[in-house]
Amino acid sequence: MKHIISVLVENKFGVLARISGLFSARGFNINSLAVGETENPTISRMTIVVEGDDKILEQIIKQLHRLIDVIRIIDLTKKGYVDRELLLFKIDTGKSKDKIVKILKNYKAKIINEDNCKLTVEVANSEEQVEKLLKALSAYEIKEMVRTGRIAVEK
Amino acid sequence: MKHIISVLVENKFGVLARISGLFSARGFNINSLAVGETENPTISRMTIVVEGDDKILEQIIKQLHRLIDVIRIIDLTKKGYVDRELLLFKIDTGKSKDKIVKILKNYKAKIINEDNCKLTVEVANSEEQVEKLLKALSAYEIKEMVRTGRIAVEK
Repeated sequence: MKHIISVLVENKFGVLARISGLFSARGFNINSLAVGETENPTISRMTIVVEGDDKILEQIIKQLHRLIDVIRIIDLTKKGYVDRELLLFKIDTGKSKDKIVKILKNYKAKIINEDNCKLTVEVANSEEQVEKLLKALSAYEIKEMVRTGRIAVEK
Repeated sequence: MKHIISVLVENKFGVLARISGLFSARGFNINSLAVGETENPTISRMTIVVEGDDKILEQIIKQLHRLIDVIRIIDLTKKGYVDRELLLFKIDTGKSKDKIVKILKNYKAKIINEDNCKLTVEVANSEEQVEKLLKALSAYEIKEMVRTGRIAVEK
């Protein structure tokens, strides 16, 4: 099962390495991780999406609690949450520009640059909608895709 | 000077810990980091924003190149790029709902949930616009802010 873990930490160097090290030491792969400042610049929030054995994850969370720079850990999967992810990518339209533009509109994706047949696209949406968009575009060539990983807040 | 570094890596556990460890070992704080899959699910892309001494950063980049799971490193700061960041936050409107909604519209921020006087807001924009929005909202109480950190693609 996928878990979305939100970790509030002191914004100090080394915290990210220690936290990601705890996951990798137990053979847990991190699907995505996003870390940025909160409303308090001395505090950062990491949003970590992981998939793996629930019991091992519980042990990792216990170890996280023991790290001195960790302030709070919330397993958002156990609560109601709203999630969003941001993607940037380029797509070669070839002769299918109209079709592609229509698909992008359906998923509220924005064209932020256009250069000959190459569109640069921005989309911010829930994981479900992002996956649907990528499926709808699977017949076309997507290049240089960058994803932030999911972030989420409690409902 | 702030640098936006884009690192393509094999999607294996431990890579994130090793990379973030290289920065922290040299006393470099990471402003933000976002890691997610690319168009090829075996490959992830990390977008790292760091600030610090340029010479030390060059040394770190050299060491990154030596890591077996690192495929490619691009210092986007040296190229033209388009950057975006995604934020979710809650804001208590109190009696200022109209003013706040107007500010949000100006910066293309979306209200994704409304519960009494509390709005849940989503905004995807460039660093510059995001900072302007937060400044415009500084008179109001922002809570539970989550940021993905910046991602960027070459122009």
